[in-house]
Amino acid sequence: MISVPVRYPHEWPVRVYYEDTDTGGVVYYANYLKFFERGRTEWLRQAGVNQSGLVAQEQLMFVVMHADISYRRPAYLDDWIVIHTRVGQLGASSITFDQQALRDDDCLATAAVRICTVHTASLKPVRLPASLRNLLEKASH
Amino acid sequence: MISVPVRYPHEWPVRVYYEDTDTGGVVYYANYLKFFERGRTEWLRQAGVNQSGLVAQEQLMFVVMHADISYRRPAYLDDWIVIHTRVGQLGASSITFDQQALRDDDCLATAAVRICTVHTASLKPVRLPASLRNLLEKASH
Amino acid sequence: MISVPVRYPHEWPVRVYYEDTDTGGVVYYANYLKFFERGRTEWLRQAGVNQSGLVAQEQLMFVVMHADISYRRPAYLDDWIVIHTRVGQLGASSITFDQQALRDDDCLATAAVRICTVHTASLKPVRLPASLRNLLEKASH
Amino acid sequence: MISVPVRYPHEWPVRVYYEDTDTGGVVYYANYLKFFERGRTEWLRQAGVNQSGLVAQEQLMFVVMHADISYRRPAYLDDWIVIHTRVGQLGASSITFDQQALRDDDCLATAAVRICTVHTASLKPVRLPASLRNLLEKASH
Repeated sequence: MISVPVRYPHEWPVRVYYEDTDTGGVVYYANYLKFFERGRTEWLRQAGVNQSGLVAQEQLMFVVMHADISYRRPAYLDDWIVIHTRVGQLGASSITFDQQALRDDDCLATAAVRICTVHTASLKPVRLPASLRNLLEKASH
Repeated sequence: MISVPVRYPHEWPVRVYYEDTDTGGVVYYANYLKFFERGRTEWLRQAGVNQSGLVAQEQLMFVVMHADISYRRPAYLDDWIVIHTRVGQLGASSITFDQQALRDDDCLATAAVRICTVHTASLKPVRLPASLRNLLEKASH
Repeated sequence: MISVPVRYPHEWPVRVYYEDTDTGGVVYYANYLKFFERGRTEWLRQAGVNQSGLVAQEQLMFVVMHADISYRRPAYLDDWIVIHTRVGQLGASSITFDQQALRDDDCLATAAVRICTVHTASLKPVRLPASLRNLLEKASH
Repeated sequence: MISVPVRYPHEWPVRVYYEDTDTGGVVYYANYLKFFERGRTEWLRQAGVNQSGLVAQEQLMFVVMHADISYRRPAYLDDWIVIHTRVGQLGASSITFDQQALRDDDCLATAAVRICTVHTASLKPVRLPASLRNLLEKASH
């Protein structure tokens, strides 16, 4: 059993359906990136950040700059996985999330994902607006 | 063996990768809709219709209104599938495609898919512009 | 607004994430088949049928034979969709599900999906075992 | 423009379809992992390694242990992307691939992906069989 010493506090459950698996009998490796994004989206939502609102009102969206994922144990159809998320680092225009995919006490995968705020039209990086930074800082502590 | 009496003339090959399969050991049912869309996209491209150009220049895009799919035989990892496509019906603002997914002489799946031209902002149906209709009519014969 | 006269009783909520959308700004058409399958899976689970258990203990799985989907209105990032599911018909080896995707009172899509019980190794159709049929009949009423 | 000093020799083209994009108007970040896997699969196929054959004849398959992806520039609908692949390191039971996603001279994304040979039933790591190692070594030079 591969356990983790610290569980990141924000939790978001994911049920494994046929859509998530592959013919190897396990969850397809790219689909963990979907699970981790659901976890980040719900972390942001709980922090008060709604991404479709951000697009509509501030012409801002997040894009992923870098992802580092370690796959430790396989997941299977019907598994109940919990995505644990915390903010690891808050930059001028970027946020790095640390994330874990756990099934009970087993750590299935871990990831560090750096996202960046960009303008929706130009896709150029933009500094995090002060109001957004405040929400993120509050939620990170 | 389930064969098809008539093969629609436009062909587009699809290789089956892990991403396309599920833990049942076969291609996941929703992914045939991706394969069929690749076939329609390439049919349109050959007819002279580039969808990203249509969005940029005419603020038009296609949305699917209806899909009817029969799954006849399973497909597997590494299979080489050919998508056969023809236009079945051309309406004022819609196109119905008839499509087949074949592996050699085996018919794996068939579909009838009706798409509709909409304005990109309003998503409201729009009559096919004459220039587009001309391209489609030429390519359908 | 397109409403539905009757809502099928079993409900399963789906949140729309970036993974579900496409560059048209709406939920990609194939992904409704994922949502509808989640609804059927949860209908089955509530009826007492666990699909990974069925594979492990009875060497049986479900495959989709036919799907007919009508797309009525677009869905967007962050939407909260409820999948409504009922059994429309119970055959010797097949089950036809009627399904609706609703956002509040709006009907976004409807589907009729026929699945068939097959042996996991041969993928040949198998009559629904009596125990399974009993569970399904109870849950259908 | 972000260019790359060295292009890895094996090339595999990928066309971007609606299925690959998201409502941000660009290719969804998880889908690069699908593109990179297509590149690795075709690298292996060219080296003489057919993954479905490996499963059937040797009860071996590859699973991903680690992936590190840098996203540099966005990709769009209808883009023609070329995946460049080389073997970076060959371990006792693992292979590390270096990969690039290029659009003409632009580098869109780079990845290092470590895969491991496992037994299909136990999913436990297995040393690369000598015959397989020979094929990989020949293809790596």
